[in-house]
Amino acid sequence: MKKHTIKDILSDYKRFLHHNITVQGWVRAFRSNRFIALNDGSTILNLQIVVDFEQFDEELIKNIKTASSLKIEGEVIESQGAGQSIEILAKKITVLGDNFSEELEKTVLQPKKHSLEVLREQAHLRFRTNLFGAVFRLRSAISFAIHQFFNQNQFFYINTPIITGADAEGAGEMFSVTNFDLNNLPKDENGEIDYTQDFFGRKTNLTVSGQLEGETAAMGLGRIYTFGPTFRAENSNTTRHLAEFWMIEPEVAFNNLEDNIDLAEDFLKFVINYVLDNCKDDLEFLDKRFAEEQKQKPERERAKEGLIEKLQNVVSKRFKRVSYTEAIEILLASKENKKGKFQFPIEAWGADLQSEHERYLVEKHFECPVVLFDYPKEIKAFYMKLNEDGKTVGAMDVLFPGIGEIIGGSEREARYDVLIQKMKEMNVDEKELWWYLDTRKFGSVPHAGFGLGLERLVLFITGMTNIRDVIPFPRTPKNAEF
Amino acid sequence: MKKHTIKDILSDYKRFLHHNITVQGWVRAFRSNRFIALNDGSTILNLQIVVDFEQFDEELIKNIKTASSLKIEGEVIESQGAGQSIEILAKKITVLGDNFSEELEKTVLQPKKHSLEVLREQAHLRFRTNLFGAVFRLRSAISFAIHQFFNQNQFFYINTPIITGADAEGAGEMFSVTNFDLNNLPKDENGEIDYTQDFFGRKTNLTVSGQLEGETAAMGLGRIYTFGPTFRAENSNTTRHLAEFWMIEPEVAFNNLEDNIDLAEDFLKFVINYVLDNCKDDLEFLDKRFAEEQKQKPERERAKEGLIEKLQNVVSKRFKRVSYTEAIEILLASKENKKGKFQFPIEAWGADLQSEHERYLVEKHFECPVVLFDYPKEIKAFYMKLNEDGKTVGAMDVLFPGIGEIIGGSEREARYDVLIQKMKEMNVDEKELWWYLDTRKFGSVPHAGFGLGLERLVLFITGMTNIRDVIPFPRTPKNAEF
Repeated sequence: MKKHTIKDILSDYKRFLHHNITVQGWVRAFRSNRFIALNDGSTILNLQIVVDFEQFDEELIKNIKTASSLKIEGEVIESQGAGQSIEILAKKITVLGDNFSEELEKTVLQPKKHSLEVLREQAHLRFRTNLFGAVFRLRSAISFAIHQFFNQNQFFYINTPIITGADAEGAGEMFSVTNFDLNNLPKDENGEIDYTQDFFGRKTNLTVSGQLEGETAAMGLGRIYTFGPTFRAENSNTTRHLAEFWMIEPEVAFNNLEDNIDLAEDFLKFVINYVLDNCKDDLEFLDKRFAEEQKQKPERERAKEGLIEKLQNVVSKRFKRVSYTEAIEILLASKENKKGKFQFPIEAWGADLQSEHERYLVEKHFECPVVLFDYPKEIKAFYMKLNEDGKTVGAMDVLFPGIGEIIGGSEREARYDVLIQKMKEMNVDEKELWWYLDTRKFGSVPHAGFGLGLERLVLFITGMTNIRDVIPFPRTPKNAEF
Repeated sequence: MKKHTIKDILSDYKRFLHHNITVQGWVRAFRSNRFIALNDGSTILNLQIVVDFEQFDEELIKNIKTASSLKIEGEVIESQGAGQSIEILAKKITVLGDNFSEELEKTVLQPKKHSLEVLREQAHLRFRTNLFGAVFRLRSAISFAIHQFFNQNQFFYINTPIITGADAEGAGEMFSVTNFDLNNLPKDENGEIDYTQDFFGRKTNLTVSGQLEGETAAMGLGRIYTFGPTFRAENSNTTRHLAEFWMIEPEVAFNNLEDNIDLAEDFLKFVINYVLDNCKDDLEFLDKRFAEEQKQKPERERAKEGLIEKLQNVVSKRFKRVSYTEAIEILLASKENKKGKFQFPIEAWGADLQSEHERYLVEKHFECPVVLFDYPKEIKAFYMKLNEDGKTVGAMDVLFPGIGEIIGGSEREARYDVLIQKMKEMNVDEKELWWYLDTRKFGSVPHAGFGLGLERLVLFITGMTNIRDVIPFPRTPKNAEF
């Protein structure tokens, strides 16, 4: 691209000094009919435009309002004021497009008046605020770092199907996909809906995970990852649930559980280091916001670390690796459990861990990211590798401060006969999964993988607290606008 | 990742020479009980393992069959034979997993016997063939190159919604998404289906394009792109249609039509250069396959260029830019049109161009990629910028040899009043698109973007001819297995 963004100009300003340049952007503020803060989305930083209003038409000056779009031609000069190294002395100003200022007052673009809830209903406009600009630039940087990590480690990016006839993983409630006219459903002789007449000739759903298909790809390509949308039709109106969210699922042939944990730790640290290195301005903005939010909380509820500090700590500490069995012992021995402070008290080995337990381990007991592994087989999925004890499976969860589980994965059961046995025990349909079983027939190999919910990681890195604020157009019960 | 892939070993073999290493992979062939061709998916190339069968247990040697999975420990030595620089002298061989050889004969893994059609029904196994290994490694490299191009040009990656209530673009038939029990649909007092009781409280569909939402993001972030699945519920059983495919849609604030064409040309050349530089082994394999396929065709149907040659030509030639009006003149004057050789003869300005016309322009008339622009407004979408002539819009299509349209895009109509007028003329619901219209209210700016169907580009680059062979799990009428 031959045009210069405001990021180009500010990050390499010496190159531009005393040159005439053209910049385009939106007015964030216009002070004293003299100083325009111009933003073009490339960075959270504004470029200051100095306007000698006597040199310009009065009508033009009147049209320069918050949210106006401008093209500025002018000279890059050293800034007289504090806060920026350079500014542009405007020589020509063009108003680019319509700006309906009377409606503007009611919207998102009027700073301070709006809350995050109001902005959610104006999701198409929140990209123009400092906060959401920062969040979505970070989401983008995180996504790129994910692709870069996998690419440099020889993983191949695979697109697993979104519409699927497979309904076997049991990861959650699914949405149906159909081409039927619901007012005129074809029925078979038994009065049942005749799905053979639907578009795909069968009942189909939106995927809840690409893992099983991903495994088949890893059996040929070795190292693969998915990065795509997944869906849950669960009626959960919480700050942590979305009906549509993005998952990253690597799968690696020849990896065992320990390799899998190593991969998860390397991966998370790579991504967080990437944003620490590449997204300083946005992170500093979010760090300040986070600090201000903490100040308004009662002291005992405040975070111990600042946002950037938290990220730096995560990348500098080795994640603590603890078996489920050890974790249960720690929890059983904890004051919290003994004094009945957990909503779900831990009574014995075999208990499913809740968010409160995970957060106790991470935030109070170890004070660092924790990887739990070797869970009881009863509380984990059928495809996880049965350990030699016959009681546990090679599952792993990575737990992060403030957020709980950020990654869940496992070594997979590679032995055909053991897998069949587990499917029987757990009522998973073998016929439905004939293709999955095939991967254990023709040169089965140990393999392992995990899933990361992108939005959880974006929440953690940005310090936002509602998952609806880290995806551009959230899909939740009763909400599919846009 | 600490383990060495076969790609690592072969591409930097001097580093490994005379070292003891461990490799894992699948047997592609086992000749004379002595030479194993081992593949781990990291590259199309096999690593030769030399087995002194007298040193190993007979039972073990029997278990080494095509598709067996092995762990080999041995010494890297200079190869005695032609075709490879190094080989591994096996010191320890472990068979990793089950291999049901009696079933094997029936499958995909038996080379030569299978056709591409059979392999489509075994989509979970085709990753293990040379052909599909190459295709899907290339698909991955193409995807990475796309992210890299946009990232280095300061574009932000945006996830637009997959499930959407918006139904206004009219790009094609949509799939419905519902949480209803179809056997028990709630009705309102008029006997109509009561969508307020569905999960999202309204009728929802799978997206056909993220463009409109992408435009709202570009109005804040400047340069954005999407990369996600899109859907068409069209009952087309052809080699060019999928019900589920992946689209890349950049959108750039402050870009006009010419900038947009520049971007499309730079983008395609970047991606093709990337694979020429990074995927030599896979491209050479596909180049040979392509050449063999051509040989079997009658001479007049043969491609003029080899596969790699075609890619090199595309990146070295400047794309020819031709207005729709000029293209119509060329077509009207062509022998083909005069002699009635087109299935759809061109009669006058205003005609919608068909694939045969596009291919005539690219393959016969100009013999290079062609960008057509400024189409009649009647044959293009409502959101395209009306030109000053009042008759044409700022649309652009990039046409490639052998494939026709690979990119379609436009400068968008940024003027609120003109856009409203066009929506009225074309019966697009203004109320439904209130949020889209907002982007023209608050500091509207010129902007432009385009859409690329990933599978079309993968077809072009790999020389494959059926779109079902370039996506891992194709979704087509009556087919949603896996």
